Amino acid sequence: MSKLLIVGTVAFDAIETPFGKTDKILGGAGTYIGLSASQFNVDSAVVSVVGDDFPQKYLDLLTNNNINIDGIEIVKGGKTFFWSGRYHNDLNTRDTLDTQLNVLADFKPVVPSAYKDADIVMLGNLHPLVQLSVLEQIESPKLVVLDTMNFWMDNTWDDLLKVIEKVDVITINDEEARQLSGEHSLVKAARKIEELGPKYIVIKKGEHGALLFHEEQIFFAPALPLEEVFDPTGAGDTFAGGFAGYLAKTEDISFENMKNAIIYGSNLASFCVEKFGTERMQELSPSEVQQRLEAFKKLTQFEIEVS
Amino acid sequence: MSKLLIVGTVAFDAIETPFGKTDKILGGAGTYIGLSASQFNVDSAVVSVVGDDFPQKYLDLLTNNNINIDGIEIVKGGKTFFWSGRYHNDLNTRDTLDTQLNVLADFKPVVPSAYKDADIVMLGNLHPLVQLSVLEQIESPKLVVLDTMNFWMDNTWDDLLKVIEKVDVITINDEEARQLSGEHSLVKAARKIEELGPKYIVIKKGEHGALLFHEEQIFFAPALPLEEVFDPTGAGDTFAGGFAGYLAKTEDISFENMKNAIIYGSNLASFCVEKFGTERMQELSPSEVQQRLEAFKKLTQFEIEVS
Repeated sequence: MSKLLIVGTVAFDAIETPFGKTDKILGGAGTYIGLSASQFNVDSAVVSVVGDDFPQKYLDLLTNNNINIDGIEIVKGGKTFFWSGRYHNDLNTRDTLDTQLNVLADFKPVVPSAYKDADIVMLGNLHPLVQLSVLEQIESPKLVVLDTMNFWMDNTWDDLLKVIEKVDVITINDEEARQLSGEHSLVKAARKIEELGPKYIVIKKGEHGALLFHEEQIFFAPALPLEEVFDPTGAGDTFAGGFAGYLAKTEDISFENMKNAIIYGSNLASFCVEKFGTERMQELSPSEVQQRLEAFKKLTQFEIEVS
Repeated sequence: MSKLLIVGTVAFDAIETPFGKTDKILGGAGTYIGLSASQFNVDSAVVSVVGDDFPQKYLDLLTNNNINIDGIEIVKGGKTFFWSGRYHNDLNTRDTLDTQLNVLADFKPVVPSAYKDADIVMLGNLHPLVQLSVLEQIESPKLVVLDTMNFWMDNTWDDLLKVIEKVDVITINDEEARQLSGEHSLVKAARKIEELGPKYIVIKKGEHGALLFHEEQIFFAPALPLEEVFDPTGAGDTFAGGFAGYLAKTEDISFENMKNAIIYGSNLASFCVEKFGTERMQELSPSEVQQRLEAFKKLTQFEIEVS
């Protein structure tokens, strides 16, 4: 089994949706990616930073899910990164109410020595220079996956291009793909982004599914149609964690296997949004995952013979 | 092979997109549905009305595609329905610049006697009372498919419900499904619409594909990711025509076969948008259709064994 190294925030979120609101709860890209990847029982570690206000029970939660936390620095006297947001009625858009970088402002990621030989590196959404720094500490990764967002395109364009150049897979949403490429058509956008470095481009369309591009090939996974989306927070990270976790478990980074990884990522993300924060992911059972994979097959598979 | 009876406008369109504009060209739901269904060499007829300003060459085009036009009334001294619209840059939205009902204002559809025993009836987007009138002339159809739009929900709600009650399949877009049901979630919307009468609900999401609902089952077909959408006019009708045409050809109206019909409809719609108006559909070859079906399989089919 491959070793998976994840870098991403481990943080507090406070979330408001049309269905209710939370106090400070466990959040962060690193958390969501880690919990999602842990579904595959892979050997994974999270590199991150928290303050000493961060509850031990949250760290225990990660450890109990078989996620190595030696790379999570605890800053004495520091406060943990905090994000607060309010979703609009359609749950597709949100306003950020508060962002407190706190210990994240001076984050110098240190990869534990036991993970410097990681096979797969998942660079969760963070400052591109932090992502680069992690990448430089890994000896010879077989696959590097990058998640990023429009904030870094707006504010750290040159640094972002430096990390994009070095990764194998990039996952971004449709609007970000358009911003990064200057192309409206996602097919053209993917082609332009491929020229920047990544060989595989995953474009996330939220409730409209996700596209995987590689050279002339395209694969599409729908999002499972749900009766209700309760809280979209972490869905993209859960998707990325499922993608990377599945590839780590199967040790197969071919395009054909990436199709399956996209389906697994979509499948796990469909659970994530059913409850606030990480709640649903914490209680998720293997049989539920299998059952919903069956639903994905029924949703997408058809029997046309092409002559 | 089943007989397919189509009712819908046969009309003039004038279209502006970011890529150019047309003079008055051939358009209308009946035209697009007919041309799309004709890909399956089914026995089909279009019921419609035009003025005597309508060029014989357009009528010949339908006849040459093996579409019976005995049900297209030509009103002497009348003018043909005309629609003009301008698409916005994203091609997802458009402004109507002009609508001239002309002969459509007094349209009393007459189904040719040879098609009163039609097996499949495709009620294209029109006043619900016109759709009802056609339906009442068919003896015992095996399957009735209804296409409609928000305009009829806004203006002829009660009449619309009367026709919805009598059909087997309804095809509408996502916003219209929400308007018709009062539900934001498409899963909930489909369930409510099912209570209005139709056993099968097709929700079209444009570039985001189409969903088919039936009882507890859901199927999803993506739209083929295209480098460029040139003109979206008629895509929904082409989809509906492919759906109905495939079912007529295969004489199998099971849910499983409807999955294939949805794929065929999406496939044909992907061609329709590549050129202005009906241009691309007129020149479409069977081998192109087959080739793109292969692309649909590659786009959506994966190999996960569910344990």
